Amino acid sequence: MGLDLHADVAELTAALLDVESVSGNEGRIADLVAEALGALPHLKLWRDGDSIIARTDLGRAERVILAGHLDTVPLPTTEGARGTVPASWQADVLYGRGATDMKGGVAVQLALAAGLAEPNRDLTFVFYDHEEVEAELSGLGRLARRHRELLDADFGILLEPTDGVVEGGCNGTMRFEARSRGKAAHSARAWMGHNAIHDLAPILQRLSAYQPQTVSVEGLDYRESLNAVKIRGGIAGNVIPDQAVVEINYRFAPDKSIEQAEAVVFELLDGFEVVRTDAAPGARPGLDQPAAAAFVAAVGGEPKPKFGWTDVARLGQLGIPAVNFGPGDPLLAHSDDEHVSGQAVRDCLAALTRWLS
Amino acid sequence: MGLDLHADVAELTAALLDVESVSGNEGRIADLVAEALGALPHLKLWRDGDSIIARTDLGRAERVILAGHLDTVPLPTTEGARGTVPASWQADVLYGRGATDMKGGVAVQLALAAGLAEPNRDLTFVFYDHEEVEAELSGLGRLARRHRELLDADFGILLEPTDGVVEGGCNGTMRFEARSRGKAAHSARAWMGHNAIHDLAPILQRLSAYQPQTVSVEGLDYRESLNAVKIRGGIAGNVIPDQAVVEINYRFAPDKSIEQAEAVVFELLDGFEVVRTDAAPGARPGLDQPAAAAFVAAVGGEPKPKFGWTDVARLGQLGIPAVNFGPGDPLLAHSDDEHVSGQAVRDCLAALTRWLS
Repeated sequence: MGLDLHADVAELTAALLDVESVSGNEGRIADLVAEALGALPHLKLWRDGDSIIARTDLGRAERVILAGHLDTVPLPTTEGARGTVPASWQADVLYGRGATDMKGGVAVQLALAAGLAEPNRDLTFVFYDHEEVEAELSGLGRLARRHRELLDADFGILLEPTDGVVEGGCNGTMRFEARSRGKAAHSARAWMGHNAIHDLAPILQRLSAYQPQTVSVEGLDYRESLNAVKIRGGIAGNVIPDQAVVEINYRFAPDKSIEQAEAVVFELLDGFEVVRTDAAPGARPGLDQPAAAAFVAAVGGEPKPKFGWTDVARLGQLGIPAVNFGPGDPLLAHSDDEHVSGQAVRDCLAALTRWLS
Repeated sequence: MGLDLHADVAELTAALLDVESVSGNEGRIADLVAEALGALPHLKLWRDGDSIIARTDLGRAERVILAGHLDTVPLPTTEGARGTVPASWQADVLYGRGATDMKGGVAVQLALAAGLAEPNRDLTFVFYDHEEVEAELSGLGRLARRHRELLDADFGILLEPTDGVVEGGCNGTMRFEARSRGKAAHSARAWMGHNAIHDLAPILQRLSAYQPQTVSVEGLDYRESLNAVKIRGGIAGNVIPDQAVVEINYRFAPDKSIEQAEAVVFELLDGFEVVRTDAAPGARPGLDQPAAAAFVAAVGGEPKPKFGWTDVARLGQLGIPAVNFGPGDPLLAHSDDEHVSGQAVRDCLAALTRWLS
């Protein structure tokens, strides 16, 4: 069954949540989005893998890009978690994986695409895959490499969850692997080997003891995070482990370059084998720029910093000033009981419809 | 190509090493063993899964069981490791996964089976699967449950590596899982969650700082080991991990019961969530028993303690006094450059042939 883009936008969100689309598995949701948009005669469509671009071509003076990712993080593993697939309603609150991050925003994009046949600005809708994984897999990055001209715009809105206010800029993100090396031996004669897992203790201790900074950038306070996100090691139940690895994620304020942020982690874990595996710079808020300031004035509210890395950084690198503005509490993203209120999705749609009509 | 049981026993070892038989993958080596033994008219054969029993039936006054496992631990992951598949010779030294633990011993069993058509004691040869994994999967355990009568014997020799001297008894072994529980959240807003991997730091620290005991039992010194053998945790690269697990292996002296050994670990990790997942008791040396003492006198040398858990414990529970006696340095078992000298395998075969002729 296809998507009904003219349904209540909260119902449309529910329909999107029912389609599992963990990163790497966006095929089905991309098919549904492409099929629904394909039925709209005022839009021209492009598809690249599981990313879709849909554009109006009305010769307006200004063009706005509205972007959102189709993928989600994996489903929760905790028993009884409600932020999963399929979605469920509790009164007007919709629970499901991606409810806040960011199928509510995607539903708003789709409703705008269907509802605004004659917007006051030309619109470019972008739906893309692989946002929740390594930066090099990003569908938006791929579109920028292959179809740069289709992304041209004067201003960008990324519909990541911001609880209905504008969130400026974003923290950067980088990943590291810290590795310990031991020597394998039979675990009954441990003294013949060296235990690599035991050697992780001081690394975890330093990470656990580290107090993340909060950095003020252009008046917005960016709170940082530094965490082990995965750990693995060991060969078999009776072998002294010869290797163990901690994956680390550092979310750093947009005052820092990638090199400066990297130095923080290398200094903290000085003496250990640490390599950087992934990095995406942050974006300064830039709300003093005319297009951003005008949008903030139109939708109202007090702008906040964006803690999560978002593709406003990537749009910024393409020369497109962009802000985050979408339904749902960003604090709930990736949580076990991810949810969004139906009203938040409707309000976001209403605000954008007003600005674009 | 089949196995030539009349070849040089070191060459026979090499042929066995070339057949990868990591636990769970013993089918091919079991086929080869069954085929080769099936050609010997003085033996009667039984097969159960990938375990094989072959018995003489000469009406001798005494029956000896000679047992060995067909499986190995996984292949080494370190580049350039020589204890792998296929095997390689360096002068008279044979490198390969299982060279010491315990395809040298299996080769001796097979050579004895082929070479001794009229032994001075009735012989029961047992080749079994799944020794290197959880106790409940043990092929020998399965044989004991299903074919107990076929294992009847007055004395047992387990051909685990002992460097050609008798090793008495064995340490026990048990496994635990220590688990930390956190709260998932987006890693860009770590303060909304709780990091389960960071919480492993004190567990690893206690394991790392623990000084294992050495316990004297009936004159033999049993050295213990307590180690993390595996570690895992994390959901995705941008999610605060909600669970992390350390698998722990404790090798304890045969003076301790399972309950006493368990108490050591529970006390060390007091305050953490720890569950026991597997346990096999040790075996006291028992070299004062007549059958064992007679065998020690026949093959000579100074008996030592066995640090690794071996199936002498299981044979002991069946009422069969048993010792470890096999070729190869037990310190090399499971190591990256596992090896055995051709001469050690030949010497072991010669000692047993003398005793049984």
